[in-house]
Amino acid sequence: MGDMERGRAKYDEVYGEGAADRLLAALSGPGSDLGRYGVEFNFGEIYSRPGLDLTQRQIASIASLVNIGGVEPQLTGHINAGLNVGLTPEEIVEVIIHCVQYAGFPRAINALNVAKKVFEQRGVA
Amino acid sequence: MGDMERGRAKYDEVYGEGAADRLLAALSGPGSDLGRYGVEFNFGEIYSRPGLDLTQRQIASIASLVNIGGVEPQLTGHINAGLNVGLTPEEIVEVIIHCVQYAGFPRAINALNVAKKVFEQRGVA
Amino acid sequence: MGDMERGRAKYDEVYGEGAADRLLAALSGPGSDLGRYGVEFNFGEIYSRPGLDLTQRQIASIASLVNIGGVEPQLTGHINAGLNVGLTPEEIVEVIIHCVQYAGFPRAINALNVAKKVFEQRGVA
Amino acid sequence: MGDMERGRAKYDEVYGEGAADRLLAALSGPGSDLGRYGVEFNFGEIYSRPGLDLTQRQIASIASLVNIGGVEPQLTGHINAGLNVGLTPEEIVEVIIHCVQYAGFPRAINALNVAKKVFEQRGVA
Amino acid sequence: MGDMERGRAKYDEVYGEGAADRLLAALSGPGSDLGRYGVEFNFGEIYSRPGLDLTQRQIASIASLVNIGGVEPQLTGHINAGLNVGLTPEEIVEVIIHCVQYAGFPRAINALNVAKKVFEQRGVA
Amino acid sequence: MGDMERGRAKYDEVYGEGAADRLLAALSGPGSDLGRYGVEFNFGEIYSRPGLDLTQRQIASIASLVNIGGVEPQLTGHINAGLNVGLTPEEIVEVIIHCVQYAGFPRAINALNVAKKVFEQRGVA
Repeated sequence: MGDMERGRAKYDEVYGEGAADRLLAALSGPGSDLGRYGVEFNFGEIYSRPGLDLTQRQIASIASLVNIGGVEPQLTGHINAGLNVGLTPEEIVEVIIHCVQYAGFPRAINALNVAKKVFEQRGVA
Repeated sequence: MGDMERGRAKYDEVYGEGAADRLLAALSGPGSDLGRYGVEFNFGEIYSRPGLDLTQRQIASIASLVNIGGVEPQLTGHINAGLNVGLTPEEIVEVIIHCVQYAGFPRAINALNVAKKVFEQRGVA
Repeated sequence: MGDMERGRAKYDEVYGEGAADRLLAALSGPGSDLGRYGVEFNFGEIYSRPGLDLTQRQIASIASLVNIGGVEPQLTGHINAGLNVGLTPEEIVEVIIHCVQYAGFPRAINALNVAKKVFEQRGVA
Repeated sequence: MGDMERGRAKYDEVYGEGAADRLLAALSGPGSDLGRYGVEFNFGEIYSRPGLDLTQRQIASIASLVNIGGVEPQLTGHINAGLNVGLTPEEIVEVIIHCVQYAGFPRAINALNVAKKVFEQRGVA
Repeated sequence: MGDMERGRAKYDEVYGEGAADRLLAALSGPGSDLGRYGVEFNFGEIYSRPGLDLTQRQIASIASLVNIGGVEPQLTGHINAGLNVGLTPEEIVEVIIHCVQYAGFPRAINALNVAKKVFEQRGVA
Repeated sequence: MGDMERGRAKYDEVYGEGAADRLLAALSGPGSDLGRYGVEFNFGEIYSRPGLDLTQRQIASIASLVNIGGVEPQLTGHINAGLNVGLTPEEIVEVIIHCVQYAGFPRAINALNVAKKVFEQRGVA
């Protein structure tokens, strides 16, 4: 399975240098293995697979989170990640609007509001 | 809003010539307006928007349906649509595997089984 | 709390004479208490409350089941119940179409197909 | 499909004069089309359909949102809308209690707390 | 069905003496019957059943809430209840980590953060 | 992370000798890595953790699947696994009944029907 070094490298590729260390520090204490799995499995394994580039993966991640609903911290993280790997703000907005067909209006509108907060924080139009 | 002609054209672009007519015939009878909205709003409006190409839209659609769960007919349809617009079987499988992080194993495995049935029906490896 | 006699009477009022007996027979064996709670709590307690008439309750039940998704047996039951208490087929279809805003198209379309099967079985247009 | 003028009129009928303008202003900026669809499709199309009156539609909307869970802003809006179109506070509470059968206790209790906040803000018992 | 006295006693066994009175006071006002059902049905009936001990019931409750998502107040309550009936903090963390297979990472991580807050409030490591 | 040998051994401990080989054979072909992750991560990693015994883990797994809904194949598997590791049929039924508080009646009843089929197949009362 994905090892920690590969996960850490991929995580930092998506979120910026030192980001995996900061994540693991934030998730230390009880249940810290869950944070470790997030890096090892999600990034060392899944995100490190060939077959989709990082912009395609972020489209799938954002669409997933819009449909799950009620996971604002992760949606904030993955919208930031989307911008980091080269999705434009317009493409991210468009993914959210696309999902209204499946997730319904309440979840799509709440996701759009999360995106607008991220754009504001990063100073993008 | 999206009109019927634009929706019908976009639906046929994704599903093949005459597909919208077949869909609307299948959804005739009580509640036929819901099928009409599916063509007018989903295809005449959402799918006709600029900002994402059809392969990106199908990644978002497939990821949405994996996460919702229990919508096998629509997942079958959108995996077919994904192949129609140029996603490879590998990319579709990869979207489903990617979603395991969010949707959990049961929904991802059930979605993969739907994809394998579609591939078999179409005779793709 | 709701007692069995009140639940049985209310259940039969909605589903027809002898229906509670048939339900309890079908749910006998392991876990039969769950069927008993369904009669005692859902019908002896909730459905027996004042404040909403039975057509309003069936609108809420059908809308709930459309949004939950993947509960076709219960949706079949509650669409039948809706017709029994006086909702027209048009009103039931309309509730399902109304829910597309919240539940998204896949769940609404699947629910509509359940309704159409019920209408066919009962020979209503 | 529903046009903007019909949607705006229906939205204002439910939420009060000028409400559609305020909504569209609040949803301006990135993704403003999603707010436009909310007015055009949800209100210009779905809410403008015959077959159910506005109190029946609000029962279906509130039941939907209780079952989806985690959509407090929309639940707040639709409980207000329910009062606006003539549902009594007792009927709204009763819809939420009815949904406990399907949505489970946590979501029903959280929805009831949203209703109580709305009642307090509007000064209704 | 479960009567109020049995529910009150079981609730207090789980949450501490006087807890049912405090709950019912907090849920008084509109819809207070929902709080009453929570005590009568959930505690007077379900929790009072033989067949599982209270630590097993809390494992099932916590796993349920992790998978539902977006029900932080109830998750806080049931993690406290788990500690009250004898689950160790390690066991509670382990239930949450176990659920990542089914609920996905976002919901598992959010649930872990709820647990950490409860542990901190109670001064447990 | 969990390696394949540890996962295979744990999977066979739960499902019987040779079961992992049969699972991996059944999940061969497109997306076979997802089956591999199921063994490596779920069984080699999560199920191999200390802190909960296998009966506690199966309570958490069954409760998870009741609440997710629409995942009958996995529920069938995990009810079988529950019996394999020493939960009694009564305890499994009791977990499902317990979950009605959170998952609502439709999902709990559908899960109970899955359990009854498993019990019948295995010839347990």
